[in-house]
Amino acid sequence: MTYNVLVLNGPNLNLLGVREPQIYGSETLADIEVLCQHMGTSLSMRVEFRQSNDEGEMVSWIQGARDSVQGLLINAGGYTHTSIALLDALSAVEIPAIEIHLSNIHRREGFRHHSYISYAARGMICGLGSYGYVLGLRAMHRILTVV
Amino acid sequence: MTYNVLVLNGPNLNLLGVREPQIYGSETLADIEVLCQHMGTSLSMRVEFRQSNDEGEMVSWIQGARDSVQGLLINAGGYTHTSIALLDALSAVEIPAIEIHLSNIHRREGFRHHSYISYAARGMICGLGSYGYVLGLRAMHRILTVV
Amino acid sequence: MTYNVLVLNGPNLNLLGVREPQIYGSETLADIEVLCQHMGTSLSMRVEFRQSNDEGEMVSWIQGARDSVQGLLINAGGYTHTSIALLDALSAVEIPAIEIHLSNIHRREGFRHHSYISYAARGMICGLGSYGYVLGLRAMHRILTVV
Amino acid sequence: MTYNVLVLNGPNLNLLGVREPQIYGSETLADIEVLCQHMGTSLSMRVEFRQSNDEGEMVSWIQGARDSVQGLLINAGGYTHTSIALLDALSAVEIPAIEIHLSNIHRREGFRHHSYISYAARGMICGLGSYGYVLGLRAMHRILTVV
Amino acid sequence: MTYNVLVLNGPNLNLLGVREPQIYGSETLADIEVLCQHMGTSLSMRVEFRQSNDEGEMVSWIQGARDSVQGLLINAGGYTHTSIALLDALSAVEIPAIEIHLSNIHRREGFRHHSYISYAARGMICGLGSYGYVLGLRAMHRILTVV
Amino acid sequence: MTYNVLVLNGPNLNLLGVREPQIYGSETLADIEVLCQHMGTSLSMRVEFRQSNDEGEMVSWIQGARDSVQGLLINAGGYTHTSIALLDALSAVEIPAIEIHLSNIHRREGFRHHSYISYAARGMICGLGSYGYVLGLRAMHRILTVV
Amino acid sequence: MTYNVLVLNGPNLNLLGVREPQIYGSETLADIEVLCQHMGTSLSMRVEFRQSNDEGEMVSWIQGARDSVQGLLINAGGYTHTSIALLDALSAVEIPAIEIHLSNIHRREGFRHHSYISYAARGMICGLGSYGYVLGLRAMHRILTVV
Amino acid sequence: MTYNVLVLNGPNLNLLGVREPQIYGSETLADIEVLCQHMGTSLSMRVEFRQSNDEGEMVSWIQGARDSVQGLLINAGGYTHTSIALLDALSAVEIPAIEIHLSNIHRREGFRHHSYISYAARGMICGLGSYGYVLGLRAMHRILTVV
Amino acid sequence: MTYNVLVLNGPNLNLLGVREPQIYGSETLADIEVLCQHMGTSLSMRVEFRQSNDEGEMVSWIQGARDSVQGLLINAGGYTHTSIALLDALSAVEIPAIEIHLSNIHRREGFRHHSYISYAARGMICGLGSYGYVLGLRAMHRILTVV
Amino acid sequence: MTYNVLVLNGPNLNLLGVREPQIYGSETLADIEVLCQHMGTSLSMRVEFRQSNDEGEMVSWIQGARDSVQGLLINAGGYTHTSIALLDALSAVEIPAIEIHLSNIHRREGFRHHSYISYAARGMICGLGSYGYVLGLRAMHRILTVV
Amino acid sequence: MTYNVLVLNGPNLNLLGVREPQIYGSETLADIEVLCQHMGTSLSMRVEFRQSNDEGEMVSWIQGARDSVQGLLINAGGYTHTSIALLDALSAVEIPAIEIHLSNIHRREGFRHHSYISYAARGMICGLGSYGYVLGLRAMHRILTVV
Amino acid sequence: MTYNVLVLNGPNLNLLGVREPQIYGSETLADIEVLCQHMGTSLSMRVEFRQSNDEGEMVSWIQGARDSVQGLLINAGGYTHTSIALLDALSAVEIPAIEIHLSNIHRREGFRHHSYISYAARGMICGLGSYGYVLGLRAMHRILTVV
Repeated sequence: MTYNVLVLNGPNLNLLGVREPQIYGSETLADIEVLCQHMGTSLSMRVEFRQSNDEGEMVSWIQGARDSVQGLLINAGGYTHTSIALLDALSAVEIPAIEIHLSNIHRREGFRHHSYISYAARGMICGLGSYGYVLGLRAMHRILTVV
Repeated sequence: MTYNVLVLNGPNLNLLGVREPQIYGSETLADIEVLCQHMGTSLSMRVEFRQSNDEGEMVSWIQGARDSVQGLLINAGGYTHTSIALLDALSAVEIPAIEIHLSNIHRREGFRHHSYISYAARGMICGLGSYGYVLGLRAMHRILTVV
Repeated sequence: MTYNVLVLNGPNLNLLGVREPQIYGSETLADIEVLCQHMGTSLSMRVEFRQSNDEGEMVSWIQGARDSVQGLLINAGGYTHTSIALLDALSAVEIPAIEIHLSNIHRREGFRHHSYISYAARGMICGLGSYGYVLGLRAMHRILTVV
Repeated sequence: MTYNVLVLNGPNLNLLGVREPQIYGSETLADIEVLCQHMGTSLSMRVEFRQSNDEGEMVSWIQGARDSVQGLLINAGGYTHTSIALLDALSAVEIPAIEIHLSNIHRREGFRHHSYISYAARGMICGLGSYGYVLGLRAMHRILTVV
Repeated sequence: MTYNVLVLNGPNLNLLGVREPQIYGSETLADIEVLCQHMGTSLSMRVEFRQSNDEGEMVSWIQGARDSVQGLLINAGGYTHTSIALLDALSAVEIPAIEIHLSNIHRREGFRHHSYISYAARGMICGLGSYGYVLGLRAMHRILTVV
Repeated sequence: MTYNVLVLNGPNLNLLGVREPQIYGSETLADIEVLCQHMGTSLSMRVEFRQSNDEGEMVSWIQGARDSVQGLLINAGGYTHTSIALLDALSAVEIPAIEIHLSNIHRREGFRHHSYISYAARGMICGLGSYGYVLGLRAMHRILTVV
Repeated sequence: MTYNVLVLNGPNLNLLGVREPQIYGSETLADIEVLCQHMGTSLSMRVEFRQSNDEGEMVSWIQGARDSVQGLLINAGGYTHTSIALLDALSAVEIPAIEIHLSNIHRREGFRHHSYISYAARGMICGLGSYGYVLGLRAMHRILTVV
Repeated sequence: MTYNVLVLNGPNLNLLGVREPQIYGSETLADIEVLCQHMGTSLSMRVEFRQSNDEGEMVSWIQGARDSVQGLLINAGGYTHTSIALLDALSAVEIPAIEIHLSNIHRREGFRHHSYISYAARGMICGLGSYGYVLGLRAMHRILTVV
Repeated sequence: MTYNVLVLNGPNLNLLGVREPQIYGSETLADIEVLCQHMGTSLSMRVEFRQSNDEGEMVSWIQGARDSVQGLLINAGGYTHTSIALLDALSAVEIPAIEIHLSNIHRREGFRHHSYISYAARGMICGLGSYGYVLGLRAMHRILTVV
Repeated sequence: MTYNVLVLNGPNLNLLGVREPQIYGSETLADIEVLCQHMGTSLSMRVEFRQSNDEGEMVSWIQGARDSVQGLLINAGGYTHTSIALLDALSAVEIPAIEIHLSNIHRREGFRHHSYISYAARGMICGLGSYGYVLGLRAMHRILTVV
Repeated sequence: MTYNVLVLNGPNLNLLGVREPQIYGSETLADIEVLCQHMGTSLSMRVEFRQSNDEGEMVSWIQGARDSVQGLLINAGGYTHTSIALLDALSAVEIPAIEIHLSNIHRREGFRHHSYISYAARGMICGLGSYGYVLGLRAMHRILTVV
Repeated sequence: MTYNVLVLNGPNLNLLGVREPQIYGSETLADIEVLCQHMGTSLSMRVEFRQSNDEGEMVSWIQGARDSVQGLLINAGGYTHTSIALLDALSAVEIPAIEIHLSNIHRREGFRHHSYISYAARGMICGLGSYGYVLGLRAMHRILTVV
């Protein structure tokens, strides 16, 4: 079986490489998609890679993943810390999800230490830059194939 | 006079019957709309029933209700606990509103105990499942006809 | 089967119609009892309607309901926010209970936002005045007959 | 000298054996009284065993113990966490008191972790079921005879 | 006109002179009643002086004062800090009330710094021992006669 | 012996009668001084009456009272809630002090509920308007003559 | 050089003049745009004036301003207090921004006292009604021309 | 009519240009006075410009403004966050006041985020350096002439 | 079967009889061991009695008890309030444990009111001095023999 | 160059496979070491794998790694949430460190949500079981080779 | 070079030797000045020793020290815990400052645990009585001569 | 008499001169021992100087000091903020202790502002680098010889 994995990116991640490189590094989101597609190919998983600035659209994408997607990687950006709607969507679809953050959110402003996404995610990988996505895909592959 | 009542449903309520049935029950949102239309008919009120995953769209719908709608039932889902924009919209339109929740939000996680919607609602009905909508329509009918 | 429903009113509700009518309305508790008896009759439920200023007496009445009563409506007044003893009594008797408040407690002083009763109640109806009792009886009827 | 010990039980303890046996066990309060009377006899102490749902009555009983009772065991149930009046009564009578709880209150809901009774009690025994009363009587005997 | 003033004392004040004299002084409650009756006579006010350990009874006494009493002095003892029911009763009867405490509650344990009674009282006199009652009667006389 | 009593008024009390009369009443500070002088005369106490907007000056006046004054009445106005320096001055001079407030500070904004003055005062009289000063002088007289 | 300034208005500001005029005044958003265009003309700045109820759209507009806009005025309405996504967008684009509020947010409900926008804004102007926009444009002109 | 406007500066503002220029800029307070006098002249308002390190003196100056001044600009420096006495003075004199801060206080240490001045000010301008005073005078002119 | 019970004492308990006798009494730890051995003998349980100042050693001892010990008494001293590692060790070994404290920890400094040990203990006995160990052994015997 | 990586495990991790398998899974720590050695070999890194129940020993090991180790993986178990000493050791040695947790600590008890280790770690991987170690070694390899 | 050191004492320190000797010891401030002058002489530093009860005066003295003083010792008394104005003055003058307290402020009331002075001081010496001043002068000498 | 003084250093202080020199300076712990030995010699006190990374060992050393040591200097490093066991050891041995910190802990992260050591120490010297040890020895000499 070929697994479909949705990699979902939240607000302002489209500015990656531009926005505060001292925090987020100089890669663009397109660079990260390339990394993810390579890793997906090598793990024989189909990777769909999306970005939205819109909380409601992200909720709808998660809902839409319900029947066709077997695993989710989610970097919800600023919505990580404020969106109960995203948490509820993740809880509802019951697809295994892994939370990704480029920076170590625990070392930044206090309001970034808490994540609503965490309540519905298997695990979190943070602070490892774009490589966190690659590791997240490996972890998802293992969750889908080993259990 | 025939009253128009808008029943507004927030994010993830479109997954009803699917999402965590141990919390929300097995009825779908379509089932609830049927209940509401029946009750509307029997109370001679026109019921419009909508759902959105989008906070901004919900704000706009409330604003749009200003001239044509006499009563609002609102189950704002996850936005209940995070949206000051929805509170401001409800305050602005000055239509009587009743807050509905399928589950008893006071018995769930701490972050679901507080509602911004409450500051602009006449009352709240929670924990009574889909029947809460039916009771909400009865209450709205009374508010509109008795006073 | 004819269901017995106990409607339990806490401290100061005997002053209704007198006490701060801008918050609680001008109906008396006797008026509300009449409403409840009418609704009880129309739903074929026997309604017993009581009021006490005494926390211990309320605890004892709930305990006493254990064998003869199938449903409870409770407006615990000021004890709502301070009585763990009432919560424990409700938990012990395992009769379905619905919490009623005349005003929307979430729009009043901060110390009225939290309810111990909620932890043992199926649902809450608040802010809808005396009509909340009527809706509560309807909801109780449904709980007792549908499930 | 024969010591008189008052064992005071608060609200809902009369439902013991009935109320939430997964938390409180299946013994009744009468069973516990039997245990206490046996232990009292074997320690040559006169045990008086009472229960009330009423905070005021409990206060009065403690006050009344002032001249005739040498030791107090108190399981104040739900009033443990809310009654400053009970604390004041215990402080006033200056009889050694031991606080008893059937369950380990520190492992339950947050609002059960704090006890006003503790401020006026020599010690606390909790989480050991009905046997806590037996141990409490042993401890009281020692306090009265050894010091 | 002769004014009726009710002086209401809460739990454990009947132990006065006995209970922790280093905090409350050595006068008994009977001594204080004598002081109050003398002051009442000299101000031509009828003073009724009561004590109860029971929150519910205190609520009922306040309610009962509604038609026959023009002023209230209340020392609610331990219920000062925990009783919303007493606050609601005082709010309901709309009789001017003055809060009295023998000790300066602001210098004692943290849980005695906050008073629910204060929200419904004209003023507070604390820390002046039994003489606070005398001053309270003078203040009540002035409220009733001057305005 | 004739007792000297210093009545100390803090910032903005010189605006009395002008400043927010709905909170503080329409009497001026001069009116209150007249009341205090009358009461002082009738109790055979010498009353010195002062006002300052300056925290440091108030501290110095309290220090200066050390040798010549037997009792202090202090209404520290806005410094009540912010001045540890005033608390330290009162603690240092060891003259009995009574805290006065025209309004009931417990019914106003949250930041007015806490008083540093209280930690060094025998008692507090609040919410009784200018008559609180009169009662304060009576209480001071009693403290000085009875003990 | 002619500077382009984007004036961005958040949810419910389209209801201005209608919504709670006792808080926000009776001018409409169109009136404010006229004021801004006039001031823009007189300062030789091109003013673009937009409103959205949608958080995601506002994020995208800020991102889009990156290359063509030299200054931002932002009144984020209810999102001021809840949107980390907007804060991140403002931080990313590195255009000088001034935060505007019609009312003085520090005098309203507690949840309006904190602004996420402030962490990325040069300054804030609040409580000065529509004139705050005019002052904001003057301030932006100075930032752009003087430094 | 020619309006008199008092511009009041609090502690350490006399060190401006010297003190931490990375936060406050390099202009001196004299430079700012020149700016204010120019703006005053062009708006036909008489500007009085003062500075004090003394809380009590500032309170007295505000009180003294009562009869001769029509508008107040106040930058209370460190007293902004600690002085209830200044708040009370501003409330008492009922002159419209605008709060000015050179830096954006919301981006600095947590203890600078809260302002007591705000409770009595029409609005706040912060983070715009000395130009904030100029804008404040414009806003005051508008308040005085338009309404 | 003969049960093995490990009685584990934490830091500074080796100083017992020396350290602050007004809090902990004058018995030494050796005295307490004698009491425990006597009680063990009379209950036919083998008691091993240890003390360590070292958190890691205590963790290892608990782990080591896994196969050979049927019951644990633990007085973790200062680690009670700070050691999640001890909590995890107790949770891991799944041996019934009873928490002992010589003093009533709820009457001491605030930082001693919370115990991590409690989350993994059947019950707590505190405030009864060395006799608490004796009662703890009785309770452990009952747990091991009755269930 | 061959990199040396130290994998450091804290208290109770030696019980892995035994301790609460519903939380931590059934693998033993030896199993995880095997995984790590395999991964180390395939990445040409020398992996040293240690476990200690002792906070001080862990501090010393980190200090000792200073000269011979290029990368650290640390799962500090219960010390994660309580040890500032470990944080200081990590900060002092300036070796890149990655924090590992088997379970998703953000979904467990509140006291496990905060990590002192995070303040000194590049990133965190949690909730992915033993596979988190494997991913951590990959991430460390990348940190050491790419930058 | 001869260094000038200003030793600044805040409110109520002029009462030293008088005020609460159980906390502050029996030396007077004059005694401490003698100690400081001796130490100054032996270290070849000119010591100026001042005391004020006035926050504003203290601010001005610190400002005035700017050009003529090389080191500051400051015991701000009660203003330690409440004065942001003093903190700002110390930050502005950029003279090295050492904070002195006679008592160990961390062992007294909670409101004395926090110091605004600390944010601008090199170090703190507390709890060592008048000798703390002597040590402070030694430390200041070292700061001025060694670096 | 020759006094024995134990200078106790906690975790990571052995890395001094290496660890974060911008915070702790470049001296090594050996350098500080030399300073202490010199000062000890000149004050005729025997100085024993130790360091441990182990909380339990530190506790034991303090206990061991009981009979042979007359004064303690303690820099508990990271255990300062987390160790109640160290506080209890210091309380138990009743040797005068002075708390030393190289940096000003009040200017660092919030979790370093609170010290358990302070509750058992005569005084604290912080922020004065290695010279703080020298001053601490002087202070200890004075405590031992003067009183």
